[in-house]
Amino acid sequence: MKVHGTPTRTIWLTDDGETVEIIDQTRLPHEFVIARLTDLDSACHAIKAMLVRGAPLIGATAAHGMALAMRSDASDAGLSRAYEALFATRPTAVNLRWALDEMKALLAPLPAAERAAAAQARAVTLCDEDVGLNEAIGDAGHAVFRDLWEKKGRPDQFNVLTHCNAGWLATVDWGTALAPIYKAHDAGLPIHVWVDETRPRNQGASLTAWELNQHGVPHTVIVDNAGGHMMQHGLVDACMVGTDRTTATGDVCNKIGTYLKALAAHDNGVPFYVALPSPTIDWTVSDGVAEIPIEDRGPGEVCRLWGRLDSGETAWITVTPDGSPAANPAFDVTPARLVTGLVTERGVCPASAEGLAGLFPERAPAAAE
Amino acid sequence: MKVHGTPTRTIWLTDDGETVEIIDQTRLPHEFVIARLTDLDSACHAIKAMLVRGAPLIGATAAHGMALAMRSDASDAGLSRAYEALFATRPTAVNLRWALDEMKALLAPLPAAERAAAAQARAVTLCDEDVGLNEAIGDAGHAVFRDLWEKKGRPDQFNVLTHCNAGWLATVDWGTALAPIYKAHDAGLPIHVWVDETRPRNQGASLTAWELNQHGVPHTVIVDNAGGHMMQHGLVDACMVGTDRTTATGDVCNKIGTYLKALAAHDNGVPFYVALPSPTIDWTVSDGVAEIPIEDRGPGEVCRLWGRLDSGETAWITVTPDGSPAANPAFDVTPARLVTGLVTERGVCPASAEGLAGLFPERAPAAAE
Repeated sequence: MKVHGTPTRTIWLTDDGETVEIIDQTRLPHEFVIARLTDLDSACHAIKAMLVRGAPLIGATAAHGMALAMRSDASDAGLSRAYEALFATRPTAVNLRWALDEMKALLAPLPAAERAAAAQARAVTLCDEDVGLNEAIGDAGHAVFRDLWEKKGRPDQFNVLTHCNAGWLATVDWGTALAPIYKAHDAGLPIHVWVDETRPRNQGASLTAWELNQHGVPHTVIVDNAGGHMMQHGLVDACMVGTDRTTATGDVCNKIGTYLKALAAHDNGVPFYVALPSPTIDWTVSDGVAEIPIEDRGPGEVCRLWGRLDSGETAWITVTPDGSPAANPAFDVTPARLVTGLVTERGVCPASAEGLAGLFPERAPAAAE
Repeated sequence: MKVHGTPTRTIWLTDDGETVEIIDQTRLPHEFVIARLTDLDSACHAIKAMLVRGAPLIGATAAHGMALAMRSDASDAGLSRAYEALFATRPTAVNLRWALDEMKALLAPLPAAERAAAAQARAVTLCDEDVGLNEAIGDAGHAVFRDLWEKKGRPDQFNVLTHCNAGWLATVDWGTALAPIYKAHDAGLPIHVWVDETRPRNQGASLTAWELNQHGVPHTVIVDNAGGHMMQHGLVDACMVGTDRTTATGDVCNKIGTYLKALAAHDNGVPFYVALPSPTIDWTVSDGVAEIPIEDRGPGEVCRLWGRLDSGETAWITVTPDGSPAANPAFDVTPARLVTGLVTERGVCPASAEGLAGLFPERAPAAAE
């Protein structure tokens, strides 16, 4: 999508045909900084230190990381080492494993001399495939919005609430939850987005607000506490969020706080949609709340915040008193019963084993019998 | 409660018998600063700029503000001016009006020469009455906790989630929602408190954490997004929150985000209690969501945060991008159907017109017939 008016992706090959560039998302929204990935270590660092984040972009970065690694050591040992190092950066990210498995399956049978070129070519097509997936999600979600807007009598403003950042910054382009918003906006639907701040890392207030602002989509930032009140007062026409991991039964593991918004949507009859590319589905898990381990990212993110001082410099501040501990679960699970529909690259389905099996019969063994 | 080991109130007369002192709560948790109130203007400023906050403490400060005003102008005009000036500081605070009406009713019939002394005496007893109310709430809520703890088989840790600051800093002493926690802790119940950060003003992370820490109550700060996840995993035994305004039917208007926690408690079978002194009940309102106007406090609190730099100085940072607007509803309404019980100075009752009428028959005209 657009940055300063120019179409931009989150990861790309530079003109030298070797170096990979990314947007250092830890500097947004206050600085637009490009970072270079030149080897395995810099790719691992980019994922681990969250210069890149979002399941699809993590996968794309891991694929490029494998390609960079092959350039310096294309042996079987080098392949294993690259796989392990990249996997260890964010072990709970399903797309990370998916992308790494994809690369390994391609590269392992090849002679070492052919691996670097093949890896880079695959990393590039994997990025293009992500863009294609997200455009398809965008088209499907746009149709959902248009239908809801028509049913409401074509109001002058159609309000969508989103949580965290499942925008183009979390993917290679378009985004997942924001793809339908960009598609709708570009097609002239009068969309306005309520942007949840998304503490503790503020991905909404920093990243979602930034990218919507850059692309010219009307939006308003609210604290995470405010969405329920907005829904009680008819100010939200639909919710659209992303997911880090979706179970085979339609439970949705997403950024902490998603579950609270789903409860409020359910209580107020607001449609609650989840946008996801199918690699985010974990077909091995059926009960999200019971089975998905939730990462605790430590107290630092809760106690300290980053932002821009009035001087223009950026700084960290501490908001809690010395001596008060903090807990920091990074995700929560929204049970399928609270989800109106799953928006995938193959269309929209109910959040259920049957719904997912209907769209992905080849991946849902039990339902295929 | 204790500050640096010393029992402390939030508002008190100094030894000169004239000056009123308060804790400047805008400096907490990073600095413990005492502010002096010497006249009507400084009392108005203290309320308006939120040096004091919390319904009961606002009422107590208004009462002392009336007394300070009487010292310089005890005429009928002076009485009216003081009433109007203090009322204008936070017009949606029910306790503010209650305290001002109380003072006016006492002072208006008196000769001007007697008003200053009478006002100060009444302000002091009004503070003592607040302490008494809160202790009674504390005892009633402590009994609720003890009962739940016994029914759970006396676990080693009894976890209570609270939102915002309804602690002693919001009252003259003890607090409302935190009074039961202090009573339980002081009596040896192994209580641990999940402290919601409470964006946008962070009253939880700054004030609740600070006062629990000062008094030695075990606690952990979490972001507002985390409570639902905690409840899904059995980590919350009860919720206890305060309220700025309670309808005659038991709807609860409290800090923005309370409604989301009540939904999560309901979804997970966690008892959700609201602690309130009866002056907080607005007997004229029956449908909280439809009838209570919600103050929008402007974008500044959402976009900017205050905290302590690593240098030790405090500073404001901006977290949103330039060009992104923000909305800031300050309160939301939790419907009575989500509230397990109301904890008042007269005991605990169901959150319903019948429940409230049972405890306060003299105030509930319809139910008294």
